[in-house]
Amino acid sequence: MQFKSRTHTCGELRKKNIGKKVVLNGWVNTRRDLGGVIFIDLRDRYGITQIVFEPQHSPESHNSAKELRTEYVISIEGVVEKRSEGTINPSLETGMIDVRVDNLQILNSAKTPPFLIEDNIDTNEETRLKYRFLDLRRPELQKNLTLRHKMYQTVRKYFDKNNFVEIETPVLMKSTPEGARDYLVPSRVHRGKFYALPQSPQTYKQLLMISGFDRYFQIVKCFRDEDLRADRQPEFTQIDVEMSFVQQEDVFLIVEGLMKDLYKNIWNKKLQTPLQRLTFADAMEKYGSDKPDLRFDLQMVTLNDVFDKSEFRVFKDQIENKGIITGLKIPGCDVPASPAGGFTRNQLDVLTEFVKKLGAGGLIWMRVKEEGLEAPVAKFFTEKEKQNLINILSAKVGDLIFILTGPKIKTLSTMGSLRLEMAKRLKLIKADTPSSLIWVTDFPLFEWDEETKRYYAMHHPFTSPNQEDLKLLDKSPNEVRAKAYDLVLNGNEIAGGSIRIHDSSIQSKMFNALGITKEEAELKFGFLLNALKYGAPPHGGIAFGFDRIVMLFTNSQSIRDVIAFPKTSSGISLMDDCPSDVSEEQLKELHLKIKN
Amino acid sequence: MQFKSRTHTCGELRKKNIGKKVVLNGWVNTRRDLGGVIFIDLRDRYGITQIVFEPQHSPESHNSAKELRTEYVISIEGVVEKRSEGTINPSLETGMIDVRVDNLQILNSAKTPPFLIEDNIDTNEETRLKYRFLDLRRPELQKNLTLRHKMYQTVRKYFDKNNFVEIETPVLMKSTPEGARDYLVPSRVHRGKFYALPQSPQTYKQLLMISGFDRYFQIVKCFRDEDLRADRQPEFTQIDVEMSFVQQEDVFLIVEGLMKDLYKNIWNKKLQTPLQRLTFADAMEKYGSDKPDLRFDLQMVTLNDVFDKSEFRVFKDQIENKGIITGLKIPGCDVPASPAGGFTRNQLDVLTEFVKKLGAGGLIWMRVKEEGLEAPVAKFFTEKEKQNLINILSAKVGDLIFILTGPKIKTLSTMGSLRLEMAKRLKLIKADTPSSLIWVTDFPLFEWDEETKRYYAMHHPFTSPNQEDLKLLDKSPNEVRAKAYDLVLNGNEIAGGSIRIHDSSIQSKMFNALGITKEEAELKFGFLLNALKYGAPPHGGIAFGFDRIVMLFTNSQSIRDVIAFPKTSSGISLMDDCPSDVSEEQLKELHLKIKN
Repeated sequence: MQFKSRTHTCGELRKKNIGKKVVLNGWVNTRRDLGGVIFIDLRDRYGITQIVFEPQHSPESHNSAKELRTEYVISIEGVVEKRSEGTINPSLETGMIDVRVDNLQILNSAKTPPFLIEDNIDTNEETRLKYRFLDLRRPELQKNLTLRHKMYQTVRKYFDKNNFVEIETPVLMKSTPEGARDYLVPSRVHRGKFYALPQSPQTYKQLLMISGFDRYFQIVKCFRDEDLRADRQPEFTQIDVEMSFVQQEDVFLIVEGLMKDLYKNIWNKKLQTPLQRLTFADAMEKYGSDKPDLRFDLQMVTLNDVFDKSEFRVFKDQIENKGIITGLKIPGCDVPASPAGGFTRNQLDVLTEFVKKLGAGGLIWMRVKEEGLEAPVAKFFTEKEKQNLINILSAKVGDLIFILTGPKIKTLSTMGSLRLEMAKRLKLIKADTPSSLIWVTDFPLFEWDEETKRYYAMHHPFTSPNQEDLKLLDKSPNEVRAKAYDLVLNGNEIAGGSIRIHDSSIQSKMFNALGITKEEAELKFGFLLNALKYGAPPHGGIAFGFDRIVMLFTNSQSIRDVIAFPKTSSGISLMDDCPSDVSEEQLKELHLKIKN
Repeated sequence: MQFKSRTHTCGELRKKNIGKKVVLNGWVNTRRDLGGVIFIDLRDRYGITQIVFEPQHSPESHNSAKELRTEYVISIEGVVEKRSEGTINPSLETGMIDVRVDNLQILNSAKTPPFLIEDNIDTNEETRLKYRFLDLRRPELQKNLTLRHKMYQTVRKYFDKNNFVEIETPVLMKSTPEGARDYLVPSRVHRGKFYALPQSPQTYKQLLMISGFDRYFQIVKCFRDEDLRADRQPEFTQIDVEMSFVQQEDVFLIVEGLMKDLYKNIWNKKLQTPLQRLTFADAMEKYGSDKPDLRFDLQMVTLNDVFDKSEFRVFKDQIENKGIITGLKIPGCDVPASPAGGFTRNQLDVLTEFVKKLGAGGLIWMRVKEEGLEAPVAKFFTEKEKQNLINILSAKVGDLIFILTGPKIKTLSTMGSLRLEMAKRLKLIKADTPSSLIWVTDFPLFEWDEETKRYYAMHHPFTSPNQEDLKLLDKSPNEVRAKAYDLVLNGNEIAGGSIRIHDSSIQSKMFNALGITKEEAELKFGFLLNALKYGAPPHGGIAFGFDRIVMLFTNSQSIRDVIAFPKTSSGISLMDDCPSDVSEEQLKELHLKIKN
């Protein structure tokens, strides 16, 4: 098709272009027919320019313009004119001018879209995903993906500047399921054999360190065949990083530099470093989470010492069973009419239901009044206990106190959830609340799985134990801390990493502790165990969940809003209807049969 | 593991550092024990530094150093010293200094590698691929991957600068095999359904244009389940580009700008643009190839006019059957002893065998002598024909003339191969021969497949026909030219692209011409056909074979030398032994059975 190529984009023309003959290409955003004169907002990625069809100026164009409908694609030629005083649109960068059309060419027509091409539309997500190519025209998604582009470039520029080598690792790799399920790819040439899609390039990046590349990074697709929770995708993007001859501090320094650049380029904010650090133990005890949101305070306090001699049965039991008693003070608000302690009985019942749903036996609450603690359980406490409680929490009149008790990690987590819930109810996070970016360190090396009755690696099986905990590896694996760390932004884990094991004998010990037999280890990870024997340097790294970071930096509600073509929570692409049936011929070539 | 972190890399120390206390981390490259004093070349990615262990200076370190073997990983502390006159190594950037070691820590030991960590080793590729983590330590592969890194950054910087948006497209997509086979990924959640890995993001990038992103690029993994030829990989990397509101010229301009940047950044050379262009028809006729190597001349000449009245049966038949007679003149060399015409009868027999293997009936050759043309077939030609032949080829004494005749495309291709073979034999391409980068344009829209008796899209089914050939689409598909183009570097196709169809009715026509039924088109490409109806802009693009470009820019012999973890020609990764068996459990979850 022959057409006049644009001289300018739809976001480009300004006062200084007045009088200039221009060609614009774009989409009809809106069309107004004002008694003869037709005004069209012409749109492209770069902006919107008003174009004007006047019947006396160009009868032919004006006539064609009557045909135009929303989302038609056109090419126009015309002269840039100053808008008259009353019609200037200061909210538009091109709002000082319009273009009087001499010639119009319709490049393509358009059916009426199933929803309006604008933000905050009231359309269900299914329709939006089915017509993703139209949904992507909306300003919000255009902005999100453009910002995502900027984040890619910032990340790569940063690592390039710091002497990292970008290296692509295979997508067709060996299946070594440990943790999540692999997506498998049947081999046609090798009957009955399969490739797997990477859950992460973990083993490859370690091999690259053994190969001497020293500093590696990659922005890479990874895959997990999980039962998808609300905001997961079967394929996701990771910023993958590995460094040789480093300690934890070196990794932190590099990552903090990257975050500084992202804060600056994307948010135009200065990030103060070094970042705050919390050990896993502290994070759990103070915030009830391994990814605490520190944009608001609300610190939990362990009350075992306060109640170590308590006669209150519920507390006594837990103290005997090595459980925990944790307290959370919700400070009174400044508005006297509604101090936190002024939560109604009804509201407190709702919160009790909230923690019960999370598995707590119940919620102990107390109001701090002039006359002392007011609570159904107050009668079970001695005066000294009440006073100590008030002291340790620095509680004041008008405050509300919550107490939970039970098995340690579970109870702390529940209180952590209540902490977040209270922050939401009290609207503690405002639009201008500064972000919170922190390190959580010293994760446990293992977690125990009740169902399968075995330990799993909390990070992954290549994570180095803390030197001083090495001796516990055989006897008390649950006490071993790892050289593992997470980066947490506003209560979201955005990156996780560790110093790796570079000694093949420790790696074997680790597999052993995980209940992986020698034979199994050899079969699955033999190549890595072997590689560790040929001069592996000390190394460590980190991996960022890129989709999630983009979501947070664009202030989006879902990662689906920062991915061009996302899948639903059941892994379906509604636009092109995949996964889909394949031909008998294809299955035959792959030596496969579907089981009924 | 606690160890002293390096203060410098092994490529960093110079004269100015003399006297400084430093820490180096690296691999033992070589170790020489010179009667007491031990010299070690310590290596990392950045270079090599000589370190010296003297028994009287630090007996303890010297003693430990005796243990060291090749590829051990160590950390040393010592003082930078000037090398004595005789021991300066000018071929090493650090060759003016060495480091006298005070302290040595062995970070890891190393088994003896199965091959030397140096270039041009005489080891079979299988061993190298099995121990890829060691192979990658060799300087050549380190250099290749580092250059590859630089090329990624150059490419992305260029597109970013030119307002392209980097967008990731799905890896798990719909299977629409057309041309090559898809790799399939069974769905666990949706029994009997499959995802496919992308052969290219073609449909997605077109949808992005329909979405208004205007300019898109991505460096992306693609997959083809083909019977691998020598230098193919099941997964390969593509630079993928698409632009809206463009004609062919706009795409050329953008691509030429990119190539200029690559020439400059990688080769430090200035690329002259605009690049030379050849139509497909010309390229075939003059060079017998759609990816002609123009680093040397050797132009073929069509001789049908010369022999249009020939009584020579072989020629007469071909002229009647619309075949071709093509000639190639090999100019005499300057060295009188061996003009091209001086090829021995034996050599000419070998060349005859060469073209016969490619399917030619035989090779006609003639030597241009003072006394005229000398050739077995000379007797069949009239004097006028001989004279015309000499004139049209501007043949001179000492030249050699080849003639092939037969069906057009096949015969031209064979002569094209002979042309390349002659260039090789005559060593026409020297180390300092300037590169040849050209466009080949106006490809045919279709190619006919004898086996399946149908037309296939030569580029892909979304390629726009030339406007003026549209009318031939129904009656004479084989005559329709496409708005399709290839970029050819030194006889290698490094990129291919086209202006796309943006009109859904033409797209339907195209599917029809390809023998794809309406139902099939709807099932496979319904989402694209639908999207074209909602305001698709004119658009076009290109895709580069990135692995091949890196291969050419690094002057490597195989793409396996520019990929970190390549697979063999049967798609096996020898290092980690994949594809591999998977558990019954995994297959069961995927509802699959292996057929015997």
